[in-house]
Amino acid sequence: MHCCWFGKTFVGLIAAAGAGLGAFSSTAAAETRHISFTIEDTILTLSGKQTFHTFSFNGQTPGPLIHVTEGDDVEVEVENNTTLPHTIHWHGMFQRGSWKNDGVPGTTQAAIAPGETFTYRFKAEPSGTMWYHCHVNVNEHVAMRGMWGPLIVDPKDPPPIEKEVTKDYILMFSSWVSNWANKPGEGGVPGDVPDFFTVNGKAFPETQPLRIKKGDVVRIRLIGAGDEMHSIHIHGHDFEVYAKDGRPLANPYPADTILFGPGERYDLILRADNPGIWMVHDHIDKHTVNGKNPMGGMMTTIEYAEIPVKDQAFYTWKDKNFVPDFYYEESLKKPLGMHENPAFKGVPAP
Amino acid sequence: MHCCWFGKTFVGLIAAAGAGLGAFSSTAAAETRHISFTIEDTILTLSGKQTFHTFSFNGQTPGPLIHVTEGDDVEVEVENNTTLPHTIHWHGMFQRGSWKNDGVPGTTQAAIAPGETFTYRFKAEPSGTMWYHCHVNVNEHVAMRGMWGPLIVDPKDPPPIEKEVTKDYILMFSSWVSNWANKPGEGGVPGDVPDFFTVNGKAFPETQPLRIKKGDVVRIRLIGAGDEMHSIHIHGHDFEVYAKDGRPLANPYPADTILFGPGERYDLILRADNPGIWMVHDHIDKHTVNGKNPMGGMMTTIEYAEIPVKDQAFYTWKDKNFVPDFYYEESLKKPLGMHENPAFKGVPAP
Amino acid sequence: MHCCWFGKTFVGLIAAAGAGLGAFSSTAAAETRHISFTIEDTILTLSGKQTFHTFSFNGQTPGPLIHVTEGDDVEVEVENNTTLPHTIHWHGMFQRGSWKNDGVPGTTQAAIAPGETFTYRFKAEPSGTMWYHCHVNVNEHVAMRGMWGPLIVDPKDPPPIEKEVTKDYILMFSSWVSNWANKPGEGGVPGDVPDFFTVNGKAFPETQPLRIKKGDVVRIRLIGAGDEMHSIHIHGHDFEVYAKDGRPLANPYPADTILFGPGERYDLILRADNPGIWMVHDHIDKHTVNGKNPMGGMMTTIEYAEIPVKDQAFYTWKDKNFVPDFYYEESLKKPLGMHENPAFKGVPAP
Repeated sequence: MHCCWFGKTFVGLIAAAGAGLGAFSSTAAAETRHISFTIEDTILTLSGKQTFHTFSFNGQTPGPLIHVTEGDDVEVEVENNTTLPHTIHWHGMFQRGSWKNDGVPGTTQAAIAPGETFTYRFKAEPSGTMWYHCHVNVNEHVAMRGMWGPLIVDPKDPPPIEKEVTKDYILMFSSWVSNWANKPGEGGVPGDVPDFFTVNGKAFPETQPLRIKKGDVVRIRLIGAGDEMHSIHIHGHDFEVYAKDGRPLANPYPADTILFGPGERYDLILRADNPGIWMVHDHIDKHTVNGKNPMGGMMTTIEYAEIPVKDQAFYTWKDKNFVPDFYYEESLKKPLGMHENPAFKGVPAP
Repeated sequence: MHCCWFGKTFVGLIAAAGAGLGAFSSTAAAETRHISFTIEDTILTLSGKQTFHTFSFNGQTPGPLIHVTEGDDVEVEVENNTTLPHTIHWHGMFQRGSWKNDGVPGTTQAAIAPGETFTYRFKAEPSGTMWYHCHVNVNEHVAMRGMWGPLIVDPKDPPPIEKEVTKDYILMFSSWVSNWANKPGEGGVPGDVPDFFTVNGKAFPETQPLRIKKGDVVRIRLIGAGDEMHSIHIHGHDFEVYAKDGRPLANPYPADTILFGPGERYDLILRADNPGIWMVHDHIDKHTVNGKNPMGGMMTTIEYAEIPVKDQAFYTWKDKNFVPDFYYEESLKKPLGMHENPAFKGVPAP
Repeated sequence: MHCCWFGKTFVGLIAAAGAGLGAFSSTAAAETRHISFTIEDTILTLSGKQTFHTFSFNGQTPGPLIHVTEGDDVEVEVENNTTLPHTIHWHGMFQRGSWKNDGVPGTTQAAIAPGETFTYRFKAEPSGTMWYHCHVNVNEHVAMRGMWGPLIVDPKDPPPIEKEVTKDYILMFSSWVSNWANKPGEGGVPGDVPDFFTVNGKAFPETQPLRIKKGDVVRIRLIGAGDEMHSIHIHGHDFEVYAKDGRPLANPYPADTILFGPGERYDLILRADNPGIWMVHDHIDKHTVNGKNPMGGMMTTIEYAEIPVKDQAFYTWKDKNFVPDFYYEESLKKPLGMHENPAFKGVPAP
């Protein structure tokens, strides 16, 4: 029964997906979103030769995008194929009337034992940038084993910004302690020294640029998925701090740097008016190393289409092989449901 | 003269306490609140067998509640029964015309030497969630010896929320470096590794649930008493960030996670509308361990009266022996003055 | 050609400075500000005997004040006299049409090699509390080698507060890892233990008091220049959080403590109404040590003119030799341009 649910096979598939973006207007009836997850022992590459043993959702870190509309009924069948217990907590979901689906071992359920399956059922409420993660031994599983992914709940009654946004990016931040890379079930203890720092599971230079053009209205969804604070700075622009924890602020404010902690989410709106190549990075300088090597970690760039990057002799990424959807920007345009991403896949642990 | 002041004995007592909550309306004249503190060498139990040598106020960490009304004249006689110098700083108090009562050694007074007594006199201003702490060698005494307690100043002209609140909780956060547990007068140096993390001096599972019911308007007063940042997440709800540093925000905002630093206070308002058992925890995952053991530290739950916790087979705390007033919720209902709490008492150091 | 630019010598001088503060009203045409920097190997004293090998701008840490008006054309010639590559990033500047002047190696330019000169040209936009820093190996050069200074851009159309402010202070916060003090080109690696903590490059007691008087409207510009979070608390007052990252908040709010991260700037407005001697310090207690010694680091005081400090027997600084301009308060009153400060100068590295 590992691979089956209501008699259908769902592993890695979107079941009962809608008919496309246009199908989900504010007047549409709530849909039921069937999603199937397995939890796997996976070897992820952070940067260069630095690999890490993760417990992954469907083989990838960050996990697949779950993209639904407010009010949808979400059903997620989770099969634990690892040798350790896990759960999934749906961070930010109210779980009204469904508290036993909140995914906290010892509080709302018994953890899902190895080989077992558990189905979470909840209504997607409220809307906004949410996320999901394991809630067993969070000091290891969340802080260091990559057990997290984005849960985007579109508002039922979209505010004007939803129509304005032309580029939509998700950035999940996490740190890693290489000392524990090959010791699943251990780590996340006092004295640990984080030495790798990733955006969507990759450290510079294996992150990807954000490719935009003048006139774009860019939403950047920051998610503190790991265990560190981050002070993200975007060059050449100010941005509007538009939403916190998925909720639009009554009083958005401009900034060029934003500090956030684990579990927090900030949606930034950047109005692209200044062609160039611009750094985006954590201003906590120690988060820009790969082990002992500088100029790595939590760094990327914004590339404007107006600037021919290949002509910039000094540009580290002038000949970079661009991997699309690294910030879920393509997945977010697909029909609602669940979307995997080959770029985030590791390889099965031996 | 250690134990005496104006010829009366005050140790551990509230002197000249008022006639009950009703006695202190906005039209009442300012009262004088006489409070007596001793500073003691005390052994506190954080969790399990982990004890810590503290310098305590009246034998407890966190210290006794000081609860007064804006405009009251506060007099606190402090007797230092330890072998090290101390002071008390009244964090947030304006000390208008009373700057020598601000409690900073080398700046507003000479520290109170062992065996000496000092009396602080100040007007309670402004209102809000304040706190008090030693200001000598703060890297040890505040960060690691438990020298802090809550100072709640009720507003003279209460805003509507004061009548709405049905449950009022105080949570003081602190981290501990077990390496220094038995070495008073040492510690708080670069390279220290904090490995215990407490709410009101206790680490999970020795914290207590917050017991509420549907319809409650819950105020949660977060106080960063120790030396770490915290990113507190409450499951199943959003809360309103109502006040910072005791001052109501002109523009409260909803959130499910809030980052704060040492010294900061946030008052959250949570409208209880979602019966269940819900986690409340620091999302900085490393703060949810007890030493090297996961699932400890800064965690607790909200328990709704509508949910019979004893029936939840999976619930870690289903048979927990509940200790009331752990979040000062009972003390806050008592007549104004000073209130000790047996649950926070340690034992005298040998 | 090291020392010359357009045929004129600029090292350590303000070229083409205006005719004084009064000369730069909102109707004045944009000026061109010519500034000349050298980057030097310098030995800075943090506190007592603790020295540190820095890469300094014009021999000082923090660097010289750059003070201009919004819309001004800024030209900064930088000559790298060290043995390592560097750049200067102008944190917060939009660099509209001038992205190759943004100062990021590998993204907007090749780093300035030892012995080479590079000239940055950009329009000062937007206004506010900005700063500049190297962008090469930021984990070492910014986090630990003192390569930063303030860039204050006065608004072209000043809001009322600009006329109200009577005292204007700049505080740049940075931490240091003494283990690397004498190893330029190394350090800033995982596991580093910061053990010195400075405001404007000095640790208490070698910081300076802020001298104000009743009635002053004090602006305190906090700049997170190093690699740590800070939770700055001011005693005896609340302050208005007036601007973030140089941009005035639509909804300022009162507080007594403010948490900020690397790269962030907060402008606080404090209305001086409470004569006394008051502590200003980082409430992250571990930031108030000098190495293993307590009562150091990020601490200073506010001294009101109404209080005769020499009469306060307990006051650590009662006989302190006051060094003016430590918070740029005098430089900010000088004609626009660039201003060095002898108090921040180190000595040339041997």
